[in-house]
Amino acid sequence: MMEGLDQRTLGVLLFPRFELLDVCGPLQAFGMLKNLFDIVLVGETAGPVESSQGPSLVAEHGFEKHPPLDVLLVPGGVGVREQAPRDEVIHWIADRAGSASLVLSVGTGSVLLALSGVLDGRRATSNKRGLTWARQQGPRVQWVEVARWVDDDKFVTASGVSAGLDMALYVVQRIAGPVVAANVARAMEYEWADDGKRDPFA
Amino acid sequence: MMEGLDQRTLGVLLFPRFELLDVCGPLQAFGMLKNLFDIVLVGETAGPVESSQGPSLVAEHGFEKHPPLDVLLVPGGVGVREQAPRDEVIHWIADRAGSASLVLSVGTGSVLLALSGVLDGRRATSNKRGLTWARQQGPRVQWVEVARWVDDDKFVTASGVSAGLDMALYVVQRIAGPVVAANVARAMEYEWADDGKRDPFA
Repeated sequence: MMEGLDQRTLGVLLFPRFELLDVCGPLQAFGMLKNLFDIVLVGETAGPVESSQGPSLVAEHGFEKHPPLDVLLVPGGVGVREQAPRDEVIHWIADRAGSASLVLSVGTGSVLLALSGVLDGRRATSNKRGLTWARQQGPRVQWVEVARWVDDDKFVTASGVSAGLDMALYVVQRIAGPVVAANVARAMEYEWADDGKRDPFA
Repeated sequence: MMEGLDQRTLGVLLFPRFELLDVCGPLQAFGMLKNLFDIVLVGETAGPVESSQGPSLVAEHGFEKHPPLDVLLVPGGVGVREQAPRDEVIHWIADRAGSASLVLSVGTGSVLLALSGVLDGRRATSNKRGLTWARQQGPRVQWVEVARWVDDDKFVTASGVSAGLDMALYVVQRIAGPVVAANVARAMEYEWADDGKRDPFA
C-alpha cells in the first residue's frame, strides 16, 4: 500500500469550527512535497469555512463533486460535536474513507471516523482531553491512551492539535522514507517528535 | 507596553505564496485566547490568498480599509521575494508597524519588515536558510544568527516556519503570563520550546 512515489490526491475535510492547526500542521508538511501530494480541500459545499480560531480556509470542492481521494485527512476541533450527528458528513466520510488507500485524522477527527464505522476493531487515538468522549462515541474502537499517533494499516490517527504535524512527518517517512521526512522537518525548522509511542500528554 | 488583558486587534498580512504554518502556527495559539486577540487577516485586496503549500486563507480586509491594528504579524514564504520590491506592500508594512504596539514576524517575514525600515538598528532573526539574503536586504538590522526568536522591544521576530509557534507562545507569556502560555501549549498538546536562545537549526 502507498508504494511508489507518484503523486496522490490528498483530500482534507473542512467543517465549521475545525481546529486550525489540525489542518495546517499536516498540510505544511505535505504541501512541501508537491511531487507526492496534490492537496484539495473539501467542504460540504465549496467556499470559505471558518476555523475554531477564526481564520477561514477555502474549500475548493463540495461533497457532490471532487476528485477521487487517495488520502483522506479528517481534522478535529470544537466543530466535531456539531458535525458528529449529521448523516451527510458521516456518510461522506464512510464512503471516502472506504475508497481511500490511506486515512488520517488529527485530534477529535478520529471521533468522526469512529462514527462512520471505519475504525471498528481498529487501534486509534484522539485528543487526550477527549478520550472519554471518544470512547463513548466509538465503543468498538480500540482506543490507545498513550500515543502521539497510532498506525493501524491504512488508518493513522494522531493525538491533539500539534500531534498532527508529527503524524504527518511519520506518514511522509512511511511513503518516501526517513531522509525525505528529515529534510521536510529541517526545512520547517521543526524538531520532529518521531516516536509515536512517546506521549507527554497522556 | 501591552500592559493589561483587554482584547487587542491582531492583524496578519497575507500575500500570495505565504508560508502556511508561519500564519497558522501563531494563529492557533492566539486564536485560543479570544478574550485577548481579535484576529483579522489583511491582504492587498480582500479575498482568498493562496499559500505556498496550496491552501488559501481568506483575507477579510484589503489594505485600503481595515480596523486599526494593535499587533501586526508578517509571515514569510517564497512569496516574500515577489512582495519585497513592491512599494504598496512595503509602505503598508512601514505604516502599520509604526502605529502597532507590537510587531511580529515569522521566517522571512522579517525581511519585509527590514525593507520597510522599521528594523533599522534593531536585533532580529529570520529563517536560518535565508540569513545571508536577509543580511543583504536589511544591512542596517542586527541579525541574530542563533535564536529561535528575538525580542527587541516592540519587535519579536521568529526563525523559520515552526519557530513561529514557539514565538507566539512567548508573546502570550509576555502579555498574559507563564501560566496562560503553558495552558495554551498544553491544550495544543505541544511541547513548547520556551528558550528563545536555543536554536537547533542555526
